[in-house]
Amino acid sequence: MLTKADIKFVKSLNEKKERYANKLFVAEGNKLVIEILHSKISVTRIFANENWLNLNEKLVGKNIEITLLKHAELTRLSNLQSTREVIALCKIPEYELDFNRLSGLTIALDTIQDPGNLGTIIRVADWFGLNNILCSKETVDCFNPKVVQSTMGSISRVKLFYGDLSIWLNKIEQPVLAASVEGTSVHEYTFPENAVLVIGNEGIGIGTELKPLIQQNICIPRKGSAESLNAAIAAAILIDRYAGLNF
Amino acid sequence: MLTKADIKFVKSLNEKKERYANKLFVAEGNKLVIEILHSKISVTRIFANENWLNLNEKLVGKNIEITLLKHAELTRLSNLQSTREVIALCKIPEYELDFNRLSGLTIALDTIQDPGNLGTIIRVADWFGLNNILCSKETVDCFNPKVVQSTMGSISRVKLFYGDLSIWLNKIEQPVLAASVEGTSVHEYTFPENAVLVIGNEGIGIGTELKPLIQQNICIPRKGSAESLNAAIAAAILIDRYAGLNF
Repeated sequence: MLTKADIKFVKSLNEKKERYANKLFVAEGNKLVIEILHSKISVTRIFANENWLNLNEKLVGKNIEITLLKHAELTRLSNLQSTREVIALCKIPEYELDFNRLSGLTIALDTIQDPGNLGTIIRVADWFGLNNILCSKETVDCFNPKVVQSTMGSISRVKLFYGDLSIWLNKIEQPVLAASVEGTSVHEYTFPENAVLVIGNEGIGIGTELKPLIQQNICIPRKGSAESLNAAIAAAILIDRYAGLNF
Repeated sequence: MLTKADIKFVKSLNEKKERYANKLFVAEGNKLVIEILHSKISVTRIFANENWLNLNEKLVGKNIEITLLKHAELTRLSNLQSTREVIALCKIPEYELDFNRLSGLTIALDTIQDPGNLGTIIRVADWFGLNNILCSKETVDCFNPKVVQSTMGSISRVKLFYGDLSIWLNKIEQPVLAASVEGTSVHEYTFPENAVLVIGNEGIGIGTELKPLIQQNICIPRKGSAESLNAAIAAAILIDRYAGLNF
């Protein structure tokens, strides 16, 4: 049975403060929940319809609280326009950032604010096997429901760390590269095997306090008239160019 | 003054049928409207606040009907979460598709359904100076308000054509390439100078009726675990690879 307290609690997790106070985030939909159940992220509670529970009985551990719901009840819990058959409450994973273990390309996000952009960047990182993303404190929380949904499951595999990018970039021994409107063309640049790639804010680019820490600006040459590229698109093009040279 | 009939009419243009019956679409926000006013697309009517009108007086032609509105009235007309200072009604441009004039890379979209994806692809095409996009009839309408907004102005420069892709791809003499999960790696493929690049539907990929028309499948090699890449991301990576070889 769905109680008013359940609805209030699940909806409260839309707020970052409540997510971190409870160390929980929400995931909706069959594909996403199954990917999380297969991952190292713990699921504490599942709200699902009978059909979903019947199909996934074996996957749901005994330590997970299960609430069987009808479609209309799931709709009341859901953040999505079209309600899915399952909603899971998942433990926010706590990862330890070890600079000595960073290898390959590490992505650093400076104040990425659009949840769809962050979700897409996480999905792209996962496609190319990049496991670590450093985020400035002003970057949208990766357990925001819109981000979680738009990662299409990749949130269960890619590790995100939030902190002071200027401190981290100072500390990192690898070359710090950045997506920029100026600099060496991505078509001519030879990416090193190990590096950090900074992607700036959608509107204002990379913060002034980070600029002195960047050793190499890389641009995507424009031939047409669009004023800018979406941050996730720019990130994907640069990561693909890195992948073409280093994989 | 804003009449009830105005509100009803502007809101009716959210529907494709009404847009094409009236040959009009809606654009919101300073940057987008100014880009359209500078383009070949005709604007028939502008709803704006006093500040916007004062700043842009010279840009607004005498043949454009102007309605001065307060913020609360603009909010009643707007489709956006945060109301902008200007909303324009624009004539849907009618372009003629001339296969003899297609040169460089032409994008063909097979049933792209997400408005944000289409808007992003239009913006990417505009960045790389690709002027023509062929769309299957099932692809979301490019004058859908969400598409228009997410093009960030590029809708005023890139020409989209809707029709039967299988007929068109049969007719085109240029090689037909496709973004695919299999095929030659984009990191190894040498793009020809003139070609058509087919991007398939977000979920099901390229339609079975189009597959026999494709001469070259190109994949973006996966190293990690994400099941797929977003259609706009895949398009951008392939277009950038083309650009690196041909610009």
